[in-house]
Amino acid sequence: MAETIANGRADQCANNIDGPTNPMVTPILTDLYQFTMAYAYWKAGKHNERAVFDLYFRRNPFGGEYTIFAGLEECIKFIANFKFTEDEIAFIRSSLPPTCEDGFFEYLRELDCSDIEIYAVTEGSVVFPKVPLMRIEGPIAVVQLLETPFVNLINYASLVTTNAARHRFVAGRSKILLEFGLRRAQGPDGGISASKYCYMGGFDATRRITVFLCFDSNVAAGKLFGIPLRGTHSHAFVSSFLSPDEIIEKSLQHRDGSSVCEDFVSLVQTWLNKLKWSHLLGGIFSETNQSELAAFTSYALAFPGSFLALVDTYDVMRSGIPNFCAVALALNDLGYKSVGIRLDSGDLAYQSCEARKFFRAIEKEFGLPGFGKMNITASNDLNEETLDALNKQGHEVDAFGIGTHLVTCYAQAALGVVFKLVEINNQPRIKLSEDVSKVSIPCKKRCYRLYGKEGYALVDIMTGENEPQPKVGERILCRHPFSESKRAYVVPQHVEELLKCFWPGNSDKTREDLPPLKEIRERCIEQLDKMRPDHMRRLNPTPYKVSVSAKLYDFIHFLWLNEAPVGELQ
Amino acid sequence: MAETIANGRADQCANNIDGPTNPMVTPILTDLYQFTMAYAYWKAGKHNERAVFDLYFRRNPFGGEYTIFAGLEECIKFIANFKFTEDEIAFIRSSLPPTCEDGFFEYLRELDCSDIEIYAVTEGSVVFPKVPLMRIEGPIAVVQLLETPFVNLINYASLVTTNAARHRFVAGRSKILLEFGLRRAQGPDGGISASKYCYMGGFDATRRITVFLCFDSNVAAGKLFGIPLRGTHSHAFVSSFLSPDEIIEKSLQHRDGSSVCEDFVSLVQTWLNKLKWSHLLGGIFSETNQSELAAFTSYALAFPGSFLALVDTYDVMRSGIPNFCAVALALNDLGYKSVGIRLDSGDLAYQSCEARKFFRAIEKEFGLPGFGKMNITASNDLNEETLDALNKQGHEVDAFGIGTHLVTCYAQAALGVVFKLVEINNQPRIKLSEDVSKVSIPCKKRCYRLYGKEGYALVDIMTGENEPQPKVGERILCRHPFSESKRAYVVPQHVEELLKCFWPGNSDKTREDLPPLKEIRERCIEQLDKMRPDHMRRLNPTPYKVSVSAKLYDFIHFLWLNEAPVGELQ
Repeated sequence: MAETIANGRADQCANNIDGPTNPMVTPILTDLYQFTMAYAYWKAGKHNERAVFDLYFRRNPFGGEYTIFAGLEECIKFIANFKFTEDEIAFIRSSLPPTCEDGFFEYLRELDCSDIEIYAVTEGSVVFPKVPLMRIEGPIAVVQLLETPFVNLINYASLVTTNAARHRFVAGRSKILLEFGLRRAQGPDGGISASKYCYMGGFDATRRITVFLCFDSNVAAGKLFGIPLRGTHSHAFVSSFLSPDEIIEKSLQHRDGSSVCEDFVSLVQTWLNKLKWSHLLGGIFSETNQSELAAFTSYALAFPGSFLALVDTYDVMRSGIPNFCAVALALNDLGYKSVGIRLDSGDLAYQSCEARKFFRAIEKEFGLPGFGKMNITASNDLNEETLDALNKQGHEVDAFGIGTHLVTCYAQAALGVVFKLVEINNQPRIKLSEDVSKVSIPCKKRCYRLYGKEGYALVDIMTGENEPQPKVGERILCRHPFSESKRAYVVPQHVEELLKCFWPGNSDKTREDLPPLKEIRERCIEQLDKMRPDHMRRLNPTPYKVSVSAKLYDFIHFLWLNEAPVGELQ
Repeated sequence: MAETIANGRADQCANNIDGPTNPMVTPILTDLYQFTMAYAYWKAGKHNERAVFDLYFRRNPFGGEYTIFAGLEECIKFIANFKFTEDEIAFIRSSLPPTCEDGFFEYLRELDCSDIEIYAVTEGSVVFPKVPLMRIEGPIAVVQLLETPFVNLINYASLVTTNAARHRFVAGRSKILLEFGLRRAQGPDGGISASKYCYMGGFDATRRITVFLCFDSNVAAGKLFGIPLRGTHSHAFVSSFLSPDEIIEKSLQHRDGSSVCEDFVSLVQTWLNKLKWSHLLGGIFSETNQSELAAFTSYALAFPGSFLALVDTYDVMRSGIPNFCAVALALNDLGYKSVGIRLDSGDLAYQSCEARKFFRAIEKEFGLPGFGKMNITASNDLNEETLDALNKQGHEVDAFGIGTHLVTCYAQAALGVVFKLVEINNQPRIKLSEDVSKVSIPCKKRCYRLYGKEGYALVDIMTGENEPQPKVGERILCRHPFSESKRAYVVPQHVEELLKCFWPGNSDKTREDLPPLKEIRERCIEQLDKMRPDHMRRLNPTPYKVSVSAKLYDFIHFLWLNEAPVGELQ
């Protein structure tokens, strides 16, 4: 059905922006109440009233003090192709009371997003609570229909990108980070989009394959996006072999084509014996597991140029590492350089150090420069805490494979992105709540990031649409939106306007380009560098300041008093 | 692209089972290493060796002692349509080293799942750690290609169904449970499938609309699945109105068509004044918020027969409830019965009790039987704990809207489903680990649930494929798979074989039907009833026993000793 919808839509929409990555993202990926409200607006003749909504979140995730904004491209792809199919309209009709008038469905039939304007922060930016990530303006009924899909598309994207950035922060820049989470992700799409956003947040590679095809029909998309793929084998591959005897095709050509080793299996066996009786290595192991040895040998015969072995199926030090080394040394005889090992259980810090010692001993014993630097990848339920613990303990891991905790955002599985009305027909609106943190900031706003002398961001400030822009070198009062006593003068050395036009609708404003993933990733890394380190640290980070202008502050509180009913004590 | 793939696939696969709900679920929704392994198997001439894999999990989620199995239907839909397209094969080729031989891609081109046999627990069953949920048998290279998609499709489905069942358990049977989580879900698909699985786990309705269209191209699918839709309006709808003056079309016909009220706005105002000056109600409020009053009135004019209002935009007791009641009373004059209110912030227990008092006072004051029973829906970051706290405090809520915590499985965002080789070429295989809980249980197995005299399930037992089936009334020894001293004799009163054939492949076995969602839901509720209450309770539940036969126990430990390398103390 999703195909039919997508095809139907493609016929109706003529523009040069592709639809969302997931074909299930359609105008009916929404809550029923968006349609009941749209009907009520329409019925009241109010549907075309011009409304402004802010999309923002209230609290940074993971106990941190920053968030990365992601998901914008998918939102723009969504509205660029926003059009109801006949099937969808029939379904909406069947979901509403039969008293709903035909005119409404005629209205839906004609709807598109040409009258919508979207201003947003650039994807990949560091963002903070309360400041709008997107400002959506247009006919109220249409803007409301965008609420649920937008919030859905931004929520997880921003959450998982932030999670990736946090993992990168703990792991440090020099380590390779691999995204391993497809099988534990919350559904196929959670898996697919995670690859994109983890890469955006600073990961290096993914082991899933789908990610490229879904982004683009071009099979070269993998190269285009530049997310490398990494793969090796599983425990099942290891235990599927019984012994080296079952390997029939034993020959392997030298890498330079100069000769052929007719019995690679024997060559491996020879090396295993050398290792066993070596002065430096002897005594660490006796009989290694033959099923594992067969699997490694067989895998090396298939991929002699990129041999990487999972070494913990039976016993890392007594079997996996010696078996790996025997195969790697045999490959080395034939001119092939092996990639390394993967550890997937047990004490990763200890095992990696022992493995490194073993590799170095081989380098020394057999005079093989570089063997000691063999890549060690570690996986097994890794997260920020375990990475931090490994760092403190000391380890020899070069690459981390992170799955479950990364893609499911296990430490905090949701970001609270909301979508609030801030103005209608040029009238600012406020949403009150007994919980001050849930009070919305009214008015169509402009938002700026003010930078200090050292190049770090100092504060974000929101102003009314028509207030003068903060100027470099000019003192400006920044006020906490809800706390009277919290305010500070700032003299910015650099002023960055945060909201840019990504969808001008019918207006003649220029549309910002949607940059390629790689550029967004670079922006993200760059932006993180512009933040003061104390905002970024894992433990007790300093909150970054988010403020409003003096004028906006006064207006918020005027409106608040105006809308809140006066109590009567009895 | 997903469309192209799906279309291409449809041409090639002729069977009467639809593809997966999400068109992105294709044979390349997998990890790269499944293809590198497939190539290594193929290169070793081993790809057609007959392997048996078990899909299972190691620990129940949410600190509980049970899990609901879900996602099977999607797996069967996946393999029924398993076929690589030319684009996919080209992409796989481009992702593997150029040395990979052409023959492998020829092999992939011909692949399908006709030689696979799948035995599984019926979807919606209560299941426990270690016992296979699915047993997948077939050529090893093909079965490995199923690992990642199967694990992905089962993991989240089972997790969220279990989460829904747990919420139902705390809320009790009499409450209505609404699934509200689309906007906070982990991506569009996490949102869409959550509706299906929450319904399976005992929820009553969803507020999202997409769910039906995605399951089926039939717009009547909503009725078919029988998941009701529920919708009302948002805070933005309330604050988008300024005052009742802006309502232009004020007339409303009596429900029976007998007359027309020309000024419904005035009628509402009249009722509001009556409430204000009433003996019973007076003093609770003075001036209500006019923007809210306008929004409620307008919504009632659009949906007079199903008026449900969100009452916390400004102040629940001083504004929302009186405004709602004025509109509901005006509707009542015209023959319409209102649905009720929704509370979305603050002290839900207190507010619901106060609202109930107010409704009852109106019933009494104006002699309106039933008004006191007005539906009260509560939402706002609800989860198992808050439901439990509300129960303890005492409340008057009839329906709960649960979003974030439900669909993102916030309390535990992933289930650790794994996929392990247990036999190849009739040779049982084991995967060892320093962590005993990670050791796999070898052999192609049969699994049974043994029931006691009171009708409750006593224990699950796994046996070798060819062992005699446990018999009613016959004593059988059930052993803990890894702990020598833990064992018990059981005399079952009823024996249920757990694994049934859902995909016979080329064999002549009968395929179990995939039951409709509603039947799965009923099975789930029924199954939960067959569990002893102490396994189900929230705090400190008793673990349910999972065992192996004496023969299988001996074999596991024989194989373990056989595969583990002997250490040497130095």
